[in-house]
Amino acid sequence: MPSKRSEIDSFLAMDVLAEANRRKKAGRPVLSLAVGQPSHPAPDRALEAAREALEHGHLGYTDAFGLQSLREAIANDYRARMGVDVNPARIAVTTGSSAGFNLAFLALFDAGDAVAIARPGYPAYRNILKALDLKVVEVEANERHEFTLTPEALEEAERAEGVTIKGVLLASPANPTGTVTGRAALKRLADWCEARGTAFISDEIYHGLVFSGEEATALSFTDEAVVINSFSKYYCMTGWRVGWMVLPEKLVRVFEQLAQNIYISAPELSQIAAEAALDARPQLDGYRAIYRANRDFLIKALPEIGLPVVSPMDGAFYAYVDVSGYSNDSVAFSRKMLAEIDVAATPGADFDPLTGGRYLRLSYAGTEAEIRQAVERIGNWLPQKR
Amino acid sequence: MPSKRSEIDSFLAMDVLAEANRRKKAGRPVLSLAVGQPSHPAPDRALEAAREALEHGHLGYTDAFGLQSLREAIANDYRARMGVDVNPARIAVTTGSSAGFNLAFLALFDAGDAVAIARPGYPAYRNILKALDLKVVEVEANERHEFTLTPEALEEAERAEGVTIKGVLLASPANPTGTVTGRAALKRLADWCEARGTAFISDEIYHGLVFSGEEATALSFTDEAVVINSFSKYYCMTGWRVGWMVLPEKLVRVFEQLAQNIYISAPELSQIAAEAALDARPQLDGYRAIYRANRDFLIKALPEIGLPVVSPMDGAFYAYVDVSGYSNDSVAFSRKMLAEIDVAATPGADFDPLTGGRYLRLSYAGTEAEIRQAVERIGNWLPQKR
Repeated sequence: MPSKRSEIDSFLAMDVLAEANRRKKAGRPVLSLAVGQPSHPAPDRALEAAREALEHGHLGYTDAFGLQSLREAIANDYRARMGVDVNPARIAVTTGSSAGFNLAFLALFDAGDAVAIARPGYPAYRNILKALDLKVVEVEANERHEFTLTPEALEEAERAEGVTIKGVLLASPANPTGTVTGRAALKRLADWCEARGTAFISDEIYHGLVFSGEEATALSFTDEAVVINSFSKYYCMTGWRVGWMVLPEKLVRVFEQLAQNIYISAPELSQIAAEAALDARPQLDGYRAIYRANRDFLIKALPEIGLPVVSPMDGAFYAYVDVSGYSNDSVAFSRKMLAEIDVAATPGADFDPLTGGRYLRLSYAGTEAEIRQAVERIGNWLPQKR
Repeated sequence: MPSKRSEIDSFLAMDVLAEANRRKKAGRPVLSLAVGQPSHPAPDRALEAAREALEHGHLGYTDAFGLQSLREAIANDYRARMGVDVNPARIAVTTGSSAGFNLAFLALFDAGDAVAIARPGYPAYRNILKALDLKVVEVEANERHEFTLTPEALEEAERAEGVTIKGVLLASPANPTGTVTGRAALKRLADWCEARGTAFISDEIYHGLVFSGEEATALSFTDEAVVINSFSKYYCMTGWRVGWMVLPEKLVRVFEQLAQNIYISAPELSQIAAEAALDARPQLDGYRAIYRANRDFLIKALPEIGLPVVSPMDGAFYAYVDVSGYSNDSVAFSRKMLAEIDVAATPGADFDPLTGGRYLRLSYAGTEAEIRQAVERIGNWLPQKR
């Protein structure tokens, strides 16, 4: 018998990926805008470092928090690019940000604790929280709140649900909305959490991919936040499963003990490649320019083919579009689209159990040709009602 | 504030590893018998496959349960070597067996459920179970029970602790004792679990490393067990973080949903290398011959230098030795040994919170020269009291 707590939702994007992979394998001309991963491989320097490490041959467990040289390189990067001083001892290398979230939820919260996340938001937040017996407080991040979490909206949610929020998790840039929370708003939220003793988890995995607005790290405002980041997105290393956290000094040991037991360590080859990727910004900024071109194209093209964009496209590489003119069941809609024109996109239901049936998330991390072709296929396929 | 459930023990082997790494970096001639990892790199075929994959460049998320070709190759391997038919759909590739344990505990048990493990045993079992709010029932696996778990000992533990055991986790070969549970005993335990509807988790990560006794998989006796395995040990791929599970048909979807959310997928390059490693048995059996030589040497040499071996050395690559002639605090003892003669070993306290102070675990997965040198250093260092 499965446990009760494992009764979580499927991560629909992954189901779409699996189906898209099946169709690709069967020779179909699939365009995948479903999964949040760059179409570019890891940067050359990262691949070269991996090749070299393979020559030396031996790869083993590293310290639970990762290779010291990588932790120091990440700290240097914060200093050089963000002007933030971080002790490398506070940096924990993780097996992707997924491991970071799991560790953070376990380290910070006990069963029954209420944790606030944005709706729409990354579905794995909700699902992991549930599996760990935590109470998920979904706070609407809509136009009224500039598509982000504000102290007012959090307090409103506390009153409405009759709970005390023990932790707040905010992503900026956000998935699926693309919202970038500006410096002032981020600082306000961090201050609110610190004043109340509420844990603040800042998901910064789309850092580096800000096209409009200001990129800010919670580390600029507080030493109490748990910052989660990743080499998957800007650094194009999804399949390598490597990310990092920056921890409050006093939580370092607790996180380390959990990491030792739950993960042992992140893959060593990925850590070596990640360290090299930190020096690959010229190449990565080239990829970023492609996303920017895709974004600028989609902002105009999507409404023209009848897919209004409902949230800012400030950052990350997602367009969150309204399909309610065609369907109120985004799961069925995306299945149909994949089956009929081989374009994969993620149903909004993944990100928003309440109103997600009206939306679709399109990832624009592909090549320009892919994105243009997808828009053309969708445009020809949609009924001409607008 | 850290959560209550994160108040787990440190994984002392990892702390010893961190200290040993610091000393190595400082130029000390450290011999590491502390961590359970082969001193050999991944087999040539695996390295070659990884190199080729790097040439092609693009690595991404795979399906949550891993590359289809790897799942099929694992199923073929079960058929060819163990005569067991397993549907590849039941095979889930994981980010090391660590991910497998975490998933299995979440999928099978709800907060408060009692799960039985052997004492002494792998400390991460106990620590992960605790962090997930599960009740750990440590059942003494001593001489009286042939160092394994038996239905009688489990029923005795239920009476003594006044609980109903919801799950049983048994490792064969076992860490740290090296015990191999024979076919008849394994079948008896699997039958007992199946008859009661108790979940059975069979940790088979040391398969391939059996030097005495019969290697058996729970899959030969039941389709209801969750079998956990890994490429870390026999396949020499610790640092690659790749393992697998074989799941009961009816639990496949529950595990898949959890895996999608908690891990996304195992590192793709590691999966590709692992698939090639399945064909590398001639090379790996060569390494295995070295462990066997180390084992045969240690069985004689350890008692001679004053370290009686307290459990069978049937399999895995561990000797569990009695140091109570010198100390009842194995943590202090191992620290002193590392500080004074640069030999790292894992304190028994890691594996047995009750009587572990009397024991030390030595890993013999190193080269013959390392093992002989370590024995010489320890022999010269121990007071000549025996």
